[in-house]
Amino acid sequence: MSQLWKKSHTGAPNPFFQKYTTGTDPIFDLELFPFDVKASTLHVKMLQKIGILSKSELKKLLSGFEKLLKKYEAGKITILSEDEDCHTIIENEMIKICGETAKKIHTGRSRNDQVLVALRLLMIQKLTEILRKLKKVSGGFVNFAEKYQGTPFPGYSHTREAMLSSIDHYFLGYTELLLNDYEYLKFAKKQTSQNPLGTGAGYGSSFPLDREMTTKELGFEKIQLNSLSTQLSRGKFELFTMDALVQLMLTLGKFANDICYFSMDELQYFLLDDAITTGSSMMPQKRNPDGFEILRGFTSVVIGNQHAIQGISQNSFTGYNRDFQLIKKPLLESLTIVSNSLEFVSLALTHLKPNQKNIEQKISSGIFAADIANDLVKEKKIPFRDAYKMAMQKIGTQKINLQENIRSKISLGAPGNAQLEWYKKMIEKM
Amino acid sequence: MSQLWKKSHTGAPNPFFQKYTTGTDPIFDLELFPFDVKASTLHVKMLQKIGILSKSELKKLLSGFEKLLKKYEAGKITILSEDEDCHTIIENEMIKICGETAKKIHTGRSRNDQVLVALRLLMIQKLTEILRKLKKVSGGFVNFAEKYQGTPFPGYSHTREAMLSSIDHYFLGYTELLLNDYEYLKFAKKQTSQNPLGTGAGYGSSFPLDREMTTKELGFEKIQLNSLSTQLSRGKFELFTMDALVQLMLTLGKFANDICYFSMDELQYFLLDDAITTGSSMMPQKRNPDGFEILRGFTSVVIGNQHAIQGISQNSFTGYNRDFQLIKKPLLESLTIVSNSLEFVSLALTHLKPNQKNIEQKISSGIFAADIANDLVKEKKIPFRDAYKMAMQKIGTQKINLQENIRSKISLGAPGNAQLEWYKKMIEKM
Amino acid sequence: MSQLWKKSHTGAPNPFFQKYTTGTDPIFDLELFPFDVKASTLHVKMLQKIGILSKSELKKLLSGFEKLLKKYEAGKITILSEDEDCHTIIENEMIKICGETAKKIHTGRSRNDQVLVALRLLMIQKLTEILRKLKKVSGGFVNFAEKYQGTPFPGYSHTREAMLSSIDHYFLGYTELLLNDYEYLKFAKKQTSQNPLGTGAGYGSSFPLDREMTTKELGFEKIQLNSLSTQLSRGKFELFTMDALVQLMLTLGKFANDICYFSMDELQYFLLDDAITTGSSMMPQKRNPDGFEILRGFTSVVIGNQHAIQGISQNSFTGYNRDFQLIKKPLLESLTIVSNSLEFVSLALTHLKPNQKNIEQKISSGIFAADIANDLVKEKKIPFRDAYKMAMQKIGTQKINLQENIRSKISLGAPGNAQLEWYKKMIEKM
Amino acid sequence: MSQLWKKSHTGAPNPFFQKYTTGTDPIFDLELFPFDVKASTLHVKMLQKIGILSKSELKKLLSGFEKLLKKYEAGKITILSEDEDCHTIIENEMIKICGETAKKIHTGRSRNDQVLVALRLLMIQKLTEILRKLKKVSGGFVNFAEKYQGTPFPGYSHTREAMLSSIDHYFLGYTELLLNDYEYLKFAKKQTSQNPLGTGAGYGSSFPLDREMTTKELGFEKIQLNSLSTQLSRGKFELFTMDALVQLMLTLGKFANDICYFSMDELQYFLLDDAITTGSSMMPQKRNPDGFEILRGFTSVVIGNQHAIQGISQNSFTGYNRDFQLIKKPLLESLTIVSNSLEFVSLALTHLKPNQKNIEQKISSGIFAADIANDLVKEKKIPFRDAYKMAMQKIGTQKINLQENIRSKISLGAPGNAQLEWYKKMIEKM
Repeated sequence: MSQLWKKSHTGAPNPFFQKYTTGTDPIFDLELFPFDVKASTLHVKMLQKIGILSKSELKKLLSGFEKLLKKYEAGKITILSEDEDCHTIIENEMIKICGETAKKIHTGRSRNDQVLVALRLLMIQKLTEILRKLKKVSGGFVNFAEKYQGTPFPGYSHTREAMLSSIDHYFLGYTELLLNDYEYLKFAKKQTSQNPLGTGAGYGSSFPLDREMTTKELGFEKIQLNSLSTQLSRGKFELFTMDALVQLMLTLGKFANDICYFSMDELQYFLLDDAITTGSSMMPQKRNPDGFEILRGFTSVVIGNQHAIQGISQNSFTGYNRDFQLIKKPLLESLTIVSNSLEFVSLALTHLKPNQKNIEQKISSGIFAADIANDLVKEKKIPFRDAYKMAMQKIGTQKINLQENIRSKISLGAPGNAQLEWYKKMIEKM
Repeated sequence: MSQLWKKSHTGAPNPFFQKYTTGTDPIFDLELFPFDVKASTLHVKMLQKIGILSKSELKKLLSGFEKLLKKYEAGKITILSEDEDCHTIIENEMIKICGETAKKIHTGRSRNDQVLVALRLLMIQKLTEILRKLKKVSGGFVNFAEKYQGTPFPGYSHTREAMLSSIDHYFLGYTELLLNDYEYLKFAKKQTSQNPLGTGAGYGSSFPLDREMTTKELGFEKIQLNSLSTQLSRGKFELFTMDALVQLMLTLGKFANDICYFSMDELQYFLLDDAITTGSSMMPQKRNPDGFEILRGFTSVVIGNQHAIQGISQNSFTGYNRDFQLIKKPLLESLTIVSNSLEFVSLALTHLKPNQKNIEQKISSGIFAADIANDLVKEKKIPFRDAYKMAMQKIGTQKINLQENIRSKISLGAPGNAQLEWYKKMIEKM
Repeated sequence: MSQLWKKSHTGAPNPFFQKYTTGTDPIFDLELFPFDVKASTLHVKMLQKIGILSKSELKKLLSGFEKLLKKYEAGKITILSEDEDCHTIIENEMIKICGETAKKIHTGRSRNDQVLVALRLLMIQKLTEILRKLKKVSGGFVNFAEKYQGTPFPGYSHTREAMLSSIDHYFLGYTELLLNDYEYLKFAKKQTSQNPLGTGAGYGSSFPLDREMTTKELGFEKIQLNSLSTQLSRGKFELFTMDALVQLMLTLGKFANDICYFSMDELQYFLLDDAITTGSSMMPQKRNPDGFEILRGFTSVVIGNQHAIQGISQNSFTGYNRDFQLIKKPLLESLTIVSNSLEFVSLALTHLKPNQKNIEQKISSGIFAADIANDLVKEKKIPFRDAYKMAMQKIGTQKINLQENIRSKISLGAPGNAQLEWYKKMIEKM
Repeated sequence: MSQLWKKSHTGAPNPFFQKYTTGTDPIFDLELFPFDVKASTLHVKMLQKIGILSKSELKKLLSGFEKLLKKYEAGKITILSEDEDCHTIIENEMIKICGETAKKIHTGRSRNDQVLVALRLLMIQKLTEILRKLKKVSGGFVNFAEKYQGTPFPGYSHTREAMLSSIDHYFLGYTELLLNDYEYLKFAKKQTSQNPLGTGAGYGSSFPLDREMTTKELGFEKIQLNSLSTQLSRGKFELFTMDALVQLMLTLGKFANDICYFSMDELQYFLLDDAITTGSSMMPQKRNPDGFEILRGFTSVVIGNQHAIQGISQNSFTGYNRDFQLIKKPLLESLTIVSNSLEFVSLALTHLKPNQKNIEQKISSGIFAADIANDLVKEKKIPFRDAYKMAMQKIGTQKINLQENIRSKISLGAPGNAQLEWYKKMIEKM
């Protein structure tokens, strides 16, 4: 098919050059396809409203878009390297379906705002899905906390046992991180929800485009006003989302890392069942936490993608540059990775359980030293710094009731005052 | 001075080990000092409220903190490598000033929540300052737009002249980016404003600490509830700020890059006066845009710092780990870089002016091709794709009035409809 | 097909878990397939040599591998998500072809060393191809230099005209970077060329494997001796290659960036013909340097991939971890990107030419100021610092012959002494 | 003091602008000072050789440089923000000492090649020091291996016990990584050892500078020939070193991470004595591995610095740009971090010991499953895949002699054939 910008009088682009610049776009553009059709539909409706298209032309085009979408949904659209991208396909297909009228679709529009509006609609949909899955995962953490409420668990600092904690306290700790990540993703979605349609190649149009109409009908929160700003912000807009995805992966990856260590043969504080472990080709006894390892590794992949986008955006010259096309892949891949990772964590939480007996056996007596010091402060009115020094002598001299010890940590948000109900309420509100 | 955790019965830490782990902390801790004093003051007030300290003890300590702060303000506090950090200094100084009573300060507190609360107070103050400076810079961009309203300026895509734009359209494009960056920074500040005081080493306390009181009195928006979450989120909280700083630097660095090219000898679209240029040691004719180059380079420095913090946070084991100490430096350095960069841009905007004559001479006739095509659509009702092909023949055949051409771009946010007043209103609201 | 490690007595892995952990591996493993077959062939030969396999068993297996390779070359091997990876496929296919004997293939081997040896053979082949293409590109730069020898070209610093240079001097400057990149890639290849086969899962084998034999026969430069080091160095070995790829992309991307600016409408120092430019969907006059923009953007993609691999490798626990699987994709993608980018530059050099007339017209008189100062030093014996100050007054007062000026820069490696022949000799030696 | 490029007729640079562009340079330039003096000394010798300076002028300048160096060594040189950098100081100081003659020093030189040559001399010295320390650390690893030869240690994969290994096998695994890192650093040093002096601002000189002489006398391995290439390669040259530093930190950081986990309360496979641990301000029982944590965290800092330099170098326009100045800080900081980290590891190896009793108690019976399978292959001639399935039934049914088991792993580089002597020989050769 011919490119939108093909001119008869010029020499042909070299085929390798074409393949090199198109790259993996055809793959990712198939995902963009329905969003471009959606935005194009609104664009022609708007063109009719402002008098560029007649009612009958609009009718023809709307019916054309419907047919095209059905063809897409039937899996009959493929994008070849020589087709360049989905936007070229759509225009060419529409010309096949609707004839000359379709040549008017691109009035008052550039591929630049066309690509952007489709990409943002896709991002908003993906973020909505991720927010939904994140709510489910957060709920999973709170349920886990509730199920094992009061189960002792060592609290660490410096990879050392520090003070006694509990399973619910540990899982609610991660829940609170997920709540913050949720806020971040919601903010990213809000920042993304700015309509670029009607900004052309960055310099607007001499047609009186009704940008308020397309903004409202496409469900954007607001207009991205200055037409050049849509191109100046390439990469920056996508980074709002990437930054939030990285933050979420930092939480999930950290949890995954914890689980890998907590399920070591030597600790076995958590047991992972066969549904989420694999074996070894050489060592028949192994039960490996591959899902958690992959999740942990994906954190680095998403961070790498964030850096790629930063690099592409950084110091790019004013206006659109073709480098920006390369933003699409790391962005869409990251959205998929995060979505799948949430799915995995949801699954994993149902195949994971703490091994209470093991935990209780392995808790060292040193873990109670700070408690001994605090008791000396409370009961004997000894200044903390002196009590701290005395506590060392007393380690291991008295039998500690684990449940009582947990309950004694009464400060707000401490293991003995973990506020499970508050988190349940927060999940509901999500 | 002796470390808080020093125990008489153990061997001494090796001096090099001590120097290695303390690193550059003494430098940055001097910045944290007044914020630690502020938080410590509130901590002891709270201890009195819940009955740990008597009123007279509190009085003594409050007076001690006042003296300490005066000593600090007089520049009489220095932190040596063997002092470890500012928190050690504060406790030791307070013992010198107040005697035994000062040994009670650390009751119900760990260095972990002590460090965190001071760092967050500092971050909030720095972000407040950056927001203020950003408002000023944004206002500077709008003023520049207003001053040179209607001055033609080429609009680019692919480093090529694309369509005619204007100075005000160009500067308002950046203004809109800055408005988005402002929202991001405000959100980062909000996310940061969560009180960690009262979470101890991550596992709370058996003292009935009044966390609501310290939250309110220290001006935090809310409590970071789960005590472990304060340590699980190390790095993540600082990344809220770093992500926003990177975004702002991407805007400023991009503008700086534009200016470097727009002021090339061959273009001279902008003139930079002597206040913001340097010369060469070997080539006497040079006027170099060093400030803009440094600004552009700082973008990479801040991104590098963001990555360092991500790496430190990533896959760290549950609870506090000493690696987290290394977050402080890239964070504080980045806050300073961004603050100075805003200062520089404010200054530079007053030493920069467009060279209208030069701009008008160099605008190529090709820049109007899209306009010709659009006119054919409007006047001759030719479908856009056909008009596009015809426009090529007509390039350069007619004299274009630049002002009229700019005014003809009437779509919302286009050069002829740039909405200066809206941006002025937005700046006021900041 | 069944996994190598599948045990009858365990519960089945969850299908989503399986898909999540397998990820995109099936795609990249198809590339690894022939290299695994090659290494497996040597492994069984070695097993026969040390008496584990009989001669007739070996014969059967060798014939099996031949058949398998033919099937692969005929495009009849596909890897499904449930097949896990190419190594599982190979073992299962071999059992189908050779029966029970194939169950002996995995003796003294783990999937860990099996994957690694195949990956290294692939990397070495790709690096060899990249070195070959780099030689061609470097030759292209030298040819360009020779073709336009003596053509004046402005030398810049701070995006300003600094001193007069020439096209050949400029292109030989990049050639020297490419020569350094070549050394780096060669070093990376050498470092990669260490045989991991025979190290099992990192802990060797109780079979007296003949590692010297496989090292020699597979063409490795040396043995990676310590069996655990093969797993400890996961990521690190791949980074040798990634580091060198990044360096090469920094050179190519920088050149691409230069060309984008040097071919601006306002400069047009270089003309790009239609074979390597694209048009715009909205602005019919545009000739966009998309290939150079994509190349520039790919630099960030390869850097992002390097960071992903660093993150995966960093702080990973001793021995193999499944996270390492995620190294494959960014590595193989980067090798492909670099290979294609070299191809593009080779092509582009034949569709690019300097516009001498334009260059000569736009060179500013200031560019000769340093020369004037130097002349004062030489002719009038005025100290340089004083001559420097006097030169400013004389700018533009005398007519400069560009060729003479270029020839006057006689220091080794300067525009008048650019040593073209030396570079030609270096290319030959590559 | 006045800047080298200061012209009387121009307006003064704004003081804040000056501070912003100078930044932290004064700090790092103090380190560069003696190297600039060294290179400047050679430069004037060369100027005399080619007839620019008379013998008496040279004598005066050489004596001046000596005086200056003594002043520096006496700590009497300070660099203020308004001095810009050490190069300005040196020229100004020399004018004070030698009068008018000193104004001739800068003949045939630019600050660009002056800075570069000093920086490279410094880098080469630092790399030499790091190589020396790395040899010592590598020797420390081999000594540790020898001291605890044959001590059983679990071999892991997927954070699970996989097969039995030994302390010496584990430490020699890391030694082999260090040997690779050593090669990388040596290569980086070689690549760095290219003389930029005599390339001026990138465009050479009309003086017949004797670059071979300065190359030889300054100890460089070769000339960086093309004068522009010195500026085109800014960042790239420094990345040779940064890449190698990152690789070394990945090894050291990974080892540090292992030690943090292996010394957990629950494992205590390694004991860290008081010389390299710290305590807690709240929990008196803690012995924290802070040195290893800081080392692990520093890995991220050095990676962040590498990225900063990549970003500064990436897509920078031809010739020198001021952004490059910002390379100095992350480079010099990283060199210091790595040097100190090697020092720390040397120290730590003498304060670390394996806890053999603990290790032996905690080794699980499953760790021998692969051995059982291999025995079935060897003794009963059962195909490996079938033996693998049978081994599961036999786990724990027989008593294993740990020493014998280790010795049974006879393949080259396996725990029973760890080749200690070879590593000792390699260390000697370093």
